[in-house]
Amino acid sequence: MPGNSFGQLFHITTFGESHGEMIGVVIDGCPAGLEIDVGFVQNELDRRKPGQSSITTQRKESDMVKFVSGIFNGKTTGAPIAAIIPNEDHKERDYENLKDKYRPSHADYSYEIKYGIRDHRGGGRSSARETAARVIAGGIAKLLLKKYNVTIAAYVSGVGEIILKKNYAELNLKNAEKNIVRCPDEGTAKKMIKLIEAMRNEGDSVGGIISCVIKNTPAGLGEPAFDKLHADLGKAMLSINAVHGFEYGSGFSGAVKKGSQNNDAFSNKKGKIITKTNFSGGIQGGISNGMDIYFNVAFKPVATIRKAQKSVNREKENIILETTGRHDPCVLPRAVPIVEAMAAIVLADHLLRNKNSKV
Amino acid sequence: MPGNSFGQLFHITTFGESHGEMIGVVIDGCPAGLEIDVGFVQNELDRRKPGQSSITTQRKESDMVKFVSGIFNGKTTGAPIAAIIPNEDHKERDYENLKDKYRPSHADYSYEIKYGIRDHRGGGRSSARETAARVIAGGIAKLLLKKYNVTIAAYVSGVGEIILKKNYAELNLKNAEKNIVRCPDEGTAKKMIKLIEAMRNEGDSVGGIISCVIKNTPAGLGEPAFDKLHADLGKAMLSINAVHGFEYGSGFSGAVKKGSQNNDAFSNKKGKIITKTNFSGGIQGGISNGMDIYFNVAFKPVATIRKAQKSVNREKENIILETTGRHDPCVLPRAVPIVEAMAAIVLADHLLRNKNSKV
Amino acid sequence: MPGNSFGQLFHITTFGESHGEMIGVVIDGCPAGLEIDVGFVQNELDRRKPGQSSITTQRKESDMVKFVSGIFNGKTTGAPIAAIIPNEDHKERDYENLKDKYRPSHADYSYEIKYGIRDHRGGGRSSARETAARVIAGGIAKLLLKKYNVTIAAYVSGVGEIILKKNYAELNLKNAEKNIVRCPDEGTAKKMIKLIEAMRNEGDSVGGIISCVIKNTPAGLGEPAFDKLHADLGKAMLSINAVHGFEYGSGFSGAVKKGSQNNDAFSNKKGKIITKTNFSGGIQGGISNGMDIYFNVAFKPVATIRKAQKSVNREKENIILETTGRHDPCVLPRAVPIVEAMAAIVLADHLLRNKNSKV
Amino acid sequence: MPGNSFGQLFHITTFGESHGEMIGVVIDGCPAGLEIDVGFVQNELDRRKPGQSSITTQRKESDMVKFVSGIFNGKTTGAPIAAIIPNEDHKERDYENLKDKYRPSHADYSYEIKYGIRDHRGGGRSSARETAARVIAGGIAKLLLKKYNVTIAAYVSGVGEIILKKNYAELNLKNAEKNIVRCPDEGTAKKMIKLIEAMRNEGDSVGGIISCVIKNTPAGLGEPAFDKLHADLGKAMLSINAVHGFEYGSGFSGAVKKGSQNNDAFSNKKGKIITKTNFSGGIQGGISNGMDIYFNVAFKPVATIRKAQKSVNREKENIILETTGRHDPCVLPRAVPIVEAMAAIVLADHLLRNKNSKV
Repeated sequence: MPGNSFGQLFHITTFGESHGEMIGVVIDGCPAGLEIDVGFVQNELDRRKPGQSSITTQRKESDMVKFVSGIFNGKTTGAPIAAIIPNEDHKERDYENLKDKYRPSHADYSYEIKYGIRDHRGGGRSSARETAARVIAGGIAKLLLKKYNVTIAAYVSGVGEIILKKNYAELNLKNAEKNIVRCPDEGTAKKMIKLIEAMRNEGDSVGGIISCVIKNTPAGLGEPAFDKLHADLGKAMLSINAVHGFEYGSGFSGAVKKGSQNNDAFSNKKGKIITKTNFSGGIQGGISNGMDIYFNVAFKPVATIRKAQKSVNREKENIILETTGRHDPCVLPRAVPIVEAMAAIVLADHLLRNKNSKV
Repeated sequence: MPGNSFGQLFHITTFGESHGEMIGVVIDGCPAGLEIDVGFVQNELDRRKPGQSSITTQRKESDMVKFVSGIFNGKTTGAPIAAIIPNEDHKERDYENLKDKYRPSHADYSYEIKYGIRDHRGGGRSSARETAARVIAGGIAKLLLKKYNVTIAAYVSGVGEIILKKNYAELNLKNAEKNIVRCPDEGTAKKMIKLIEAMRNEGDSVGGIISCVIKNTPAGLGEPAFDKLHADLGKAMLSINAVHGFEYGSGFSGAVKKGSQNNDAFSNKKGKIITKTNFSGGIQGGISNGMDIYFNVAFKPVATIRKAQKSVNREKENIILETTGRHDPCVLPRAVPIVEAMAAIVLADHLLRNKNSKV
Repeated sequence: MPGNSFGQLFHITTFGESHGEMIGVVIDGCPAGLEIDVGFVQNELDRRKPGQSSITTQRKESDMVKFVSGIFNGKTTGAPIAAIIPNEDHKERDYENLKDKYRPSHADYSYEIKYGIRDHRGGGRSSARETAARVIAGGIAKLLLKKYNVTIAAYVSGVGEIILKKNYAELNLKNAEKNIVRCPDEGTAKKMIKLIEAMRNEGDSVGGIISCVIKNTPAGLGEPAFDKLHADLGKAMLSINAVHGFEYGSGFSGAVKKGSQNNDAFSNKKGKIITKTNFSGGIQGGISNGMDIYFNVAFKPVATIRKAQKSVNREKENIILETTGRHDPCVLPRAVPIVEAMAAIVLADHLLRNKNSKV
Repeated sequence: MPGNSFGQLFHITTFGESHGEMIGVVIDGCPAGLEIDVGFVQNELDRRKPGQSSITTQRKESDMVKFVSGIFNGKTTGAPIAAIIPNEDHKERDYENLKDKYRPSHADYSYEIKYGIRDHRGGGRSSARETAARVIAGGIAKLLLKKYNVTIAAYVSGVGEIILKKNYAELNLKNAEKNIVRCPDEGTAKKMIKLIEAMRNEGDSVGGIISCVIKNTPAGLGEPAFDKLHADLGKAMLSINAVHGFEYGSGFSGAVKKGSQNNDAFSNKKGKIITKTNFSGGIQGGISNGMDIYFNVAFKPVATIRKAQKSVNREKENIILETTGRHDPCVLPRAVPIVEAMAAIVLADHLLRNKNSKV
C-alpha cells in the first residue's frame, strides 16, 4: 500500500495539494450507526485553520468541510466516508518565482529527486495543508471514541526556550483553548505569544513541543510485536509536518534513570488494578494498561522564513533566496488539533483491532 | 494485518516465545538472486546474544540461525525466506512462581487483560527474545543494502547519566565494536561499563541512549504523507522492547531553535547538491535527500531487577515481589544490533518501494 | 484494511453512493511523470455510462470526470490522484417506497443485517454506480500499461442463450465497439440485441458472458503463492456487481480433459520461447509466461425487473413488490469497460510489484 | 505486502519448498483462548497427504504437524501460531535431469523468467506441497468456525467427463469421506476411481470439479466493494495449484437465465427471513444472507504426466521430455481438504472483520 493511507481498520486516505482544487479524505472502516455531528468536526477544523489569530499565518482559508458520502440521515452507513475542503486561496503567481529553486529545509529538492517532477505551488502535496484532511478524520475518530469515554487533549508545552515546567496533572487542560497559543498555563502562554510575535517581526520562525494526554483508554489496546500502541502513536506523530521527535511516558528522561526509580508498582485501588506511578505512560509491552497515556512531540521551527537564505536552483547554481508575503512564525498553536486528530485515529484503530483479541 | 509483521515490500513476520521451542522469522519480498552470507547473519546474532560479556545477562543461548527456505545454492530464490533459532534455555520451573503475579513495568498485566491468558514463562511473546528474529531479518536487509553501498552503524551514546557528548562526526564509529558496551569513545565506554557493573551489583538496571547513523542513502527514499522515512524509522525503533523515545536530525533540541538557525542551506559541492548543515537528519518532507541520516533512541531501564518490589497478583492482592537469578542490568550493548537491524529493514523496504516512484 | 480499496502498489479506493452527491476514486501509487489524457479516461466512462444506447437503462447521467489532485501540467506527480463524478440524477422520491422492503436478489437485506442501517436510495453503496469510479482508475491504469504495450480488450460473448461460439483468435475484437451490444461478431450481436429488446419489453432481464483478452503482457507478472496473477484477476472480476463466475485459460472445460490434451508444449519460435497451444491462458504457476491472457466472466441477470415479485418487508411480512420506471435489461454491454478497467488495474499493479522480483 | 500471505485479520503466511527442509505456516490474528485439537488438525493433513490411497501419488510423506509457537496449555495465546512439517522425501537426484528443462504447463519457465533463478527440485516453491501449510491454517480456522457452528464440506463432483449430476441438497455429504475419491455418490465414485486408474495406467492425468458447501454462516459477512465474500472465496480457490475456474450460486449457468428465473424471493419462515430459492449462493451484494453458500472449483489435469512431451531447454533448444517415477493422475481427492481449508480461512477472516461493522 502506498503512503497516503494510515490505519488498519479505521483506515484513512488523504488526497489533494496545497494549491489544487480541493483536499480531502476517505475514511474506510468506521462502524455503521455512528451519529455524525458535522458542527463538531467543523470546529476541529476551525482550531487548525490559518488566520485564526494574530500569531498564525494570515493566509485566508475558511476550510469548510463537506461530507460527500458514507453518511445517511446523520449516521454512518458503513460505506466509506468521504469529505472534501475546497481550496479558496490558490493563486499560482505567488509561487512562480520558486519554480526552479529549492527552499532550504523544505521538501522541494527531495520531492523533485524522487518524482522527477514537482508541484511547486505552495509545496504541493508536501504542504501542511494536507493535515486539514487528517483533522476531519480525527473528528470522526473522536466521535467514535466518545462512545468509550476516551478523551484526548493536547496543548503547547514549549515554544522555543519558553518551556512549561508543570506536569499535565498539575494543569487544567481546558485552559489551553482559552488563549491563542493553546498553552494551559496563562503566564507561560503570554511569554510564548510574545516570543512568537517577536519571531514574526524578525521574519523568523520558532519550534516547540506539544504534549498530549489520553484518558480513559481501556486496557488491552495495542498489538505486539510491531504495532505496539506507542509505536503507532509515534509513527502518527512523526508523519506530521515538521515533527522531529516523539517520546512517551518517561521518554528521554527515563534513559538516565534506574529500574528501581522508573518501575511502576501495581496497586489495588478500590478493587481496580492501577499503578502508583505512571512512568510507563499508560502502555506496557505495547499494550494500554488503563492508566493515562501521555507523550511529547517535538516540532522543528518551520522552514519558511522571510530572511534571505543561501540555496541552489535546479541548475545547481548557488543563489540567494528571498521569500516575501505571509508566513507562520510558529505552527504549534495550529498543530494542537492535528496532534489530537492523529492520536484519535490511532486510538480508534486500535479499539477496533482489539475487538478480536479474545475468542 | 495483525501486529507481528513489519514492512510493505521487504516484509517480515516474526513468531515464537521466550520459552517455546524456537523463535523464527519469515521474510517475504526479498528480491531473488541475492547472495546470502550466513556467517554474516550469524555474526549479527552473536552481537545480540545473551551472555556475550560480563555486563550482559548470563542467560545462555547460542542462538544459532538455521535458514529453512527461500535460499538455494547460496542465493535467494524469491520464495519467502524462513529462519529459525531453537530455544535452548527453556526450563519452565524458573517462572512458575510468577504465574499469578504481575511484574511491575512488564507486559504481564496488559497481556493478560488483552488476551485473557498469559504465557508467563519469561514473558512469553513479550520477551525481548523476539528481537533475535528481527536481527536475522536485519542481516538479510543489510546484505541487500550493501548492493547500494548503504551502511548503518549504531552505538551506545548514553548509559544512565554517562552521556557521550561528541557528535557522530567526531567519532570513529568502528571503535564501538572494540569494547563490550559498544560506545565508540573509549573513555566514556569505561565509565559506562563501571556504571553497569554497579547496577548489576545493586540488583538494579539502568536506561540509556543508542545513536544510529546511516550513510550513502540514495536521495528519494520515503513515501508521503504517512510513510515518511523518519516516521517508519520511528515506528521501527519504538517497536523495540523498552524504547520510550525517538528523535532524528535536530530532534528535541530543534524545538528550541529558530528557523534561521535550523534551516539547512543547499549548496553545490563539486557538482553535487548537498546541505551545508544537516539539522534535517538527511530527510526533508519525509524523503531522504542524500545526506547522512541520524537518530537517537531512548531506552528505559529494563524492568527486571533483583530488588523487592510492591505489586499485585491476579486476585488483586497487594504482594511483595522478589525475583532472583540472572538479570540484564543494561540492555543497551545488546540492543545496538537490534537498532541497526530495524533500521536496515526500513531502508531495504523503502529502497524497494522507491523503485516505482517514476514512470 | 477495509473493503473499499484494491491493489497493492497501484492502489485504488472508491467512495460514493448511487444517490449521494458524487462518487469518486483515489489512486495512490501511480508513478510520477505519466501523461494523463483526460479525454481518453472520459471516453472510457462514456462506454460505461447509462443511456448510451437503446438497450441500456435510460437513466440519465453525463458522468463527467473531474480530476482534483495528483496531476500537474498534464502529468502525474506521485501524489494521490483523486477524481470525482458529480451525481446528477438523485431524486430521493423514486425510492421512498422501497425504504422498508427487501428487493429480491439485491443487497438490501444483507446490507441491513450487516450494518443495521441502509441507504435505500438506488442501492446506495451497493449500486453498480460505484463501478464508474473503477473505470476512471482503469483508464489511468491503461495509460500506464500503454508504456509497456499491454492491450486489453473485452467483449460480450454471451447474452442469455445467444452464445458466440468463436474463439477470440477468430475474431476482430475491434468490431466489438461497432455495435451497441459490444459483441465483435455482427450476426451474433444482432441476435443479442433482439433478445435484450425482448427482455426490456417483458420487463425482465438477462445474464451473459464477457470475454477478455490481454496481449503483450511481459512474462514474470504474478506473485506466488496467493497473489497469483489469475487469482487477482479472478477477485477483481468477482468484485464487479452481478458477477457469479470466472475462468481463465481452459477454465471449466479443462476440467474434463486429460493432461496430455491440456498441456502446452514449449517451442522455440524465431528465438523466442512460446507455447504451441495456450490452454494455460498465458499464466503458469500464477505467473505470466508472455502468451495471451484470456478469461471469461459470468454475469447473472440483474435483479431489477419490472415484474411483480414476492418478498418481505422489515417487519418480516410477506409482500408483493412491484417496481416501475427505468431498468437495465442487460448490463453486459456497459460492463465491458468495467471488466477492462479491473483487468487493467490488476495488470498495472503486478507490473509495479514485479519491479522487485530480482536484485 | 508480498504474495505469500493471505487474509486481513485471520492472516496466514506460508513458507517452504517441495524439497527444502520443511514447510510451514504462521497464523497471525487468531483470537486468544481458542482450544486447539492437534489431532483434528493432523487429521485434516492426513486427508491431503500423498500416498493415502491407491489412486493418489505414491510419494511418501507422513506430514506430521508440529506447532512451535502461539499455543500454551492447549489454547491460543494471541501470539502468532507457527507450525511446521518436516520434509522427509527430498532426494535431489530425482530432479537433476530437469534442471535446465522447462516442463510443459508447469511453473518452471515463468518462475525462471521472473526470478532469474529456479529451485528445480520438485517445483520448489511452486509445488502443491505448499498447500499442506494451508491445510494446517485451515484446521485452526475450522476450530474457530466451530464456535459459530459454521460447517464446511467439499467433495469431488467431477473427474474428467464423469460428472455428478445431483445437487448438493440431494446428497449426504458425509459419504464423501467413505471412498477414496471423495465423491458422496457411491456409483459415481466408482466410475471416477476407474477413470483415475485408467489415467495412471496410461501415464496421463485428468482434471475435475470440486464442489463446496458452507452452512450456518451468519448473515452479514463480506466487505464491499472489493472484498465481497465471494470475491475473497474466488481468490482463495484460484490461488490453489491447478485451479482454472470458480463459480458460486447460479454461476455460469445463471448467465443464460432471465432475472425472473434467477431472483430469489424472500420469505418469512417461522419468523426467520429466508429465500425460497438460493441462486444467490447465500451471498447478496457480496454479503452473506444466512442461506447456504455453495461454489464449484475447476481443476485442470495436473501437468505431470509420464508421456513423452515436446518442450525446450534453457538454451531454447527443442527437446523431448520424458519423466518417470511417481505421478498423481488426479489431484482432486487430495484437493478436497485444501478447498475446505481455504474456504475456512476466508470465513474465519470475514467473521473477525465483521465484528466492526456496527458501532
